[in-house]
Amino acid sequence: MSSLGLGIIGAGRIGQLHLDNVRRHIPEATVVALADIAFEHAKAVAAERGVPQVYADPAAVFESPDVDAILICSSTDTHAGLIEAGAKAKKHVFCEKPIALDLATIDRAVAAAEAAGITLQVGFNRRFDPNFAEAKRQVSEGKVGSVHLLRIASRDPGPPPIEYVKLSGGLFLDMTIHDFDMARYIVGDEVEEVFAVGGVLVDPQIGNAGDIDTGVVVLRFGNGAIGVIDNSREAVYGYDQRLEVFGSGGMISVGNPKPHTAVRSSRDGDSAPPLLHFFLERYAESFIAELRAFIDAACGRSKVPVTGADGRAPVAMALAAKRSLQEGRPVRVSEIDG
Amino acid sequence: MSSLGLGIIGAGRIGQLHLDNVRRHIPEATVVALADIAFEHAKAVAAERGVPQVYADPAAVFESPDVDAILICSSTDTHAGLIEAGAKAKKHVFCEKPIALDLATIDRAVAAAEAAGITLQVGFNRRFDPNFAEAKRQVSEGKVGSVHLLRIASRDPGPPPIEYVKLSGGLFLDMTIHDFDMARYIVGDEVEEVFAVGGVLVDPQIGNAGDIDTGVVVLRFGNGAIGVIDNSREAVYGYDQRLEVFGSGGMISVGNPKPHTAVRSSRDGDSAPPLLHFFLERYAESFIAELRAFIDAACGRSKVPVTGADGRAPVAMALAAKRSLQEGRPVRVSEIDG
Amino acid sequence: MSSLGLGIIGAGRIGQLHLDNVRRHIPEATVVALADIAFEHAKAVAAERGVPQVYADPAAVFESPDVDAILICSSTDTHAGLIEAGAKAKKHVFCEKPIALDLATIDRAVAAAEAAGITLQVGFNRRFDPNFAEAKRQVSEGKVGSVHLLRIASRDPGPPPIEYVKLSGGLFLDMTIHDFDMARYIVGDEVEEVFAVGGVLVDPQIGNAGDIDTGVVVLRFGNGAIGVIDNSREAVYGYDQRLEVFGSGGMISVGNPKPHTAVRSSRDGDSAPPLLHFFLERYAESFIAELRAFIDAACGRSKVPVTGADGRAPVAMALAAKRSLQEGRPVRVSEIDG
Amino acid sequence: MSSLGLGIIGAGRIGQLHLDNVRRHIPEATVVALADIAFEHAKAVAAERGVPQVYADPAAVFESPDVDAILICSSTDTHAGLIEAGAKAKKHVFCEKPIALDLATIDRAVAAAEAAGITLQVGFNRRFDPNFAEAKRQVSEGKVGSVHLLRIASRDPGPPPIEYVKLSGGLFLDMTIHDFDMARYIVGDEVEEVFAVGGVLVDPQIGNAGDIDTGVVVLRFGNGAIGVIDNSREAVYGYDQRLEVFGSGGMISVGNPKPHTAVRSSRDGDSAPPLLHFFLERYAESFIAELRAFIDAACGRSKVPVTGADGRAPVAMALAAKRSLQEGRPVRVSEIDG
Repeated sequence: MSSLGLGIIGAGRIGQLHLDNVRRHIPEATVVALADIAFEHAKAVAAERGVPQVYADPAAVFESPDVDAILICSSTDTHAGLIEAGAKAKKHVFCEKPIALDLATIDRAVAAAEAAGITLQVGFNRRFDPNFAEAKRQVSEGKVGSVHLLRIASRDPGPPPIEYVKLSGGLFLDMTIHDFDMARYIVGDEVEEVFAVGGVLVDPQIGNAGDIDTGVVVLRFGNGAIGVIDNSREAVYGYDQRLEVFGSGGMISVGNPKPHTAVRSSRDGDSAPPLLHFFLERYAESFIAELRAFIDAACGRSKVPVTGADGRAPVAMALAAKRSLQEGRPVRVSEIDG
Repeated sequence: MSSLGLGIIGAGRIGQLHLDNVRRHIPEATVVALADIAFEHAKAVAAERGVPQVYADPAAVFESPDVDAILICSSTDTHAGLIEAGAKAKKHVFCEKPIALDLATIDRAVAAAEAAGITLQVGFNRRFDPNFAEAKRQVSEGKVGSVHLLRIASRDPGPPPIEYVKLSGGLFLDMTIHDFDMARYIVGDEVEEVFAVGGVLVDPQIGNAGDIDTGVVVLRFGNGAIGVIDNSREAVYGYDQRLEVFGSGGMISVGNPKPHTAVRSSRDGDSAPPLLHFFLERYAESFIAELRAFIDAACGRSKVPVTGADGRAPVAMALAAKRSLQEGRPVRVSEIDG
Repeated sequence: MSSLGLGIIGAGRIGQLHLDNVRRHIPEATVVALADIAFEHAKAVAAERGVPQVYADPAAVFESPDVDAILICSSTDTHAGLIEAGAKAKKHVFCEKPIALDLATIDRAVAAAEAAGITLQVGFNRRFDPNFAEAKRQVSEGKVGSVHLLRIASRDPGPPPIEYVKLSGGLFLDMTIHDFDMARYIVGDEVEEVFAVGGVLVDPQIGNAGDIDTGVVVLRFGNGAIGVIDNSREAVYGYDQRLEVFGSGGMISVGNPKPHTAVRSSRDGDSAPPLLHFFLERYAESFIAELRAFIDAACGRSKVPVTGADGRAPVAMALAAKRSLQEGRPVRVSEIDG
Repeated sequence: MSSLGLGIIGAGRIGQLHLDNVRRHIPEATVVALADIAFEHAKAVAAERGVPQVYADPAAVFESPDVDAILICSSTDTHAGLIEAGAKAKKHVFCEKPIALDLATIDRAVAAAEAAGITLQVGFNRRFDPNFAEAKRQVSEGKVGSVHLLRIASRDPGPPPIEYVKLSGGLFLDMTIHDFDMARYIVGDEVEEVFAVGGVLVDPQIGNAGDIDTGVVVLRFGNGAIGVIDNSREAVYGYDQRLEVFGSGGMISVGNPKPHTAVRSSRDGDSAPPLLHFFLERYAESFIAELRAFIDAACGRSKVPVTGADGRAPVAMALAAKRSLQEGRPVRVSEIDG
């Protein structure tokens, strides 16, 4: 079979996104199976997009002989178990982040994938954003010399529903986790210590739910570099995703792409448009590119770009940040991961 | 039949582009037939993209009962005849620009389409570029007040092959024609007089072929506004497509979108990336949007956004510019179109 | 005497500007005399700034033994006569632009200065603007290769009083003249032909006074380059002064400097401040730099950067533009200057 | 006497800067006396700028009946004593930052000034930078709503001589102190806790001298806002001074002003000039504006904009940051200031 057969588990927003991206942009693969416990919904999605096999039970996807690789797009609590199922079935696995909210579970899943020799890629899509990827490329080429400082601003356009917040694992595991991955990716080194501060400045309900909505995390890398991430659940001007990496040879700054380039000049000055609304728009290209990379890796054409270990490290950082916030002190990642 | 059946005439670069765009982005339509006198090539293209009917003779596309609308993507000299064939067959027609290089031929084709009551849309795709469309939207909303001045910079990354130049009809009919359309579109009024100057500054071969490679055209609109277009066949820094519209209430400037937002700061200053290479990259979104608009118009859901008259006017302007260049004087469009 | 003694003729806005600039920024020179037919006003200005000699009659300035060089800041109709007086008195002359509104008068004044061997510098201050000077520097270094296209946007924040308009000589002699000089300066070649269009779009009173308020001039340089200048008497967003020079090796664009770098991001997008109000703010540095250059030239330390010939050429171009507008045809500068 | 008589103590770089600024830009004041222990140097400076009285001993300045106000521009260890001398002599005092490197000394000096009823202004000039002042203005007008996050990047173009580093009091007291002041100024609230990290990434000699060259400080404000400052002793691309303030209503970003607006587009992309070299260029306007404000305050025309308390708070923050770095924990400012 010339085209790689894909099975998608989870027919929600992100599952549909990957399904559409495969259909439109990745001729080397075909989605042959879709599973969701919301079976009627899955059937409707599959019918609309011409997916031949639909199941309520994910197990059926692993059993389908037409499926070569699985995209895990279901809720976080199911991720690790499904990776293990993929390992057992010897099917390659792309898994949305995070693998799990605790390290032991992640370790079991990653070990299973390794033992089985399957490709396991974790869905840190932002690495594939053309803007951040360009920064990485230039850093790798030595364009900033040794990295001294990293700044990431990562702010959502508005807070999620409070029910979501309650189940999210908290700001650091839910939102900052992408930035923790980006920090490791850009600097190319491990974070040894984190210090986190935070507050409830956007919505008191988030505080009542035991979470924060505004946070700053300082990262100390093994190579001496210092990173700073700031997060907010509400930037009224839109989805703000920027990065700046500074070193002995200069700086690379990644700004926000804009929906259009028209600028109006009036008595009030110059006005440029607001930012792209949210991650589906801002990171549209990255979702396609990460799947292309997964399919290349699954087909043995290239190395997997975001490994199980890459999926694990940001969770350890997030747990360290959480403890730092609780205890009001810098926390070494090794304390979490001892 | 729920999906609109499309037939494409011409399996070259632009025909393939539309074919891919329909398949990826326009679920309301299906390409059911493809014709090209280069029949083997057409068969290969059709096979790769799953187009069921392939023909050497365009006439067969018009006869196919599965075809509701035609996309004319063949060479310019065939356009008008194919529009007339579409009119006869009562199939809607999307035709790449220009309809023809002379007004009489255009008039016959447009009249035939009108008489037949078919939808005829001309391929001035740049109107659908999100950047220029935003400028138009703001002008229509009165954000610049009355338009006084319009400036368009439109420069290619490099000259076409000299054989292409010889058949192109000259810079004004080949390249500026898009800018003539944009000028009418943005200002919302007709041009009454043009004055053109030009030179051979890029490549003497272009001069030997009887053409210019650098040109400036001044436009006088009926409402008093003044426009200036400048063209070059070679901007070494990339495909440069900008516009500025100035009026009693302010100005809107449309800049070039960039491939990424990473900026490097070094001892030498700040450096941002070069422009997108050429029109396939720069105007990728516009090609999708113009087809969506055509399909909406063909299905009666909206008015055709680029009419036969819109296809005709820029040709008249180009012919006037050509005469202005030859005679060294301002030329009224009515002199051409008398 | 170690400090160059300056006499200023004209105690109006521009005379005061030069007076203050000498006092604040040019320790190598001292303003020792000031003359204005509005004698009481001149006395007040001189008293406030510590100028020892004040006269109603300019002739007294030329006679003063303490005066080594003259700054002519009086009305245009007096310029040529005062240059001739300077030549006679063997005093160096800095003269505000234009020398006169006709070429014969200019020729007499320039010839007198040359015959006397005095330094004569004409006040085209924009050449000394750090932004435009940088563009010139880069063009001279070959950073754009051969120049193919030049675009100048030069728009005032609002029209002058109608009485001023009536005496101004018209848009091309009053406003575009600076742009004509800039065009020659940047391209480094002479303009052979101009084509001008214009209209009354800002204020009908300007039309009633026999002038236009909106204009576009196309320039053909001897080396084949093509230039375009656009002017408006009213840009509601502020004093808009931009330039773009394009050639075989790339492009240099000069944008408008801004009063500050603070940008606000809100639900409505990003907003940056309006432009600097008008020429006194926008060109503040250029006025200091041109005087420094004059004093250096007057002291024999460097060549005069804006000669009598430089003062003459833009007037010839303006007269050609005026004729072009009247006759609706391109006009060769040699027709004016035959 | 209509003009305020100023005495300057310290004829070094900053003393000369203020002297020149008064002469050029502040007609309401006159520098009548200059003192420096390097007496020959002071005499030369005074002669060149026409300062009538010159002394080796600062005490003579306080005794001069022509001196209404003092500018303290000598080394830090002399500041507090000179403020007290000014209080005793009932002369207004402008004092370069910092007043002293310990709080007790500062308290004595500030108390003396208060008891004497003199105007005391501390030289945090950056508040008067037009870019940062605009940000402050907009924050005060509520343009960002409640402040949630503040980011300051403050990086020098290169490290100072190692002898300077040894006497500087360390990065936080020497360099970050300006940013601590800016943070309080912009947010309009006090910092309660700081957490500092740092490293020696630029030059090992700085580490050998017991200091750091790269640092990040997290600030917790009383109102819940979180601030982050990053510093480097060497940004190879120039003096980098930026600020971003984010709140419930949006964000204001202050970028670096550039020496000119010319941008070059070539095959390699777009290139803009490097930053202004260092603080004398970058903050030139701020030095003039702070003196104007001091003179206004000394003359009773307005309130003193940077008080003794404003001079004290950043020192307390710097000392807290120093302890945080040593002890590896967040430090409350009240621990320092108990």
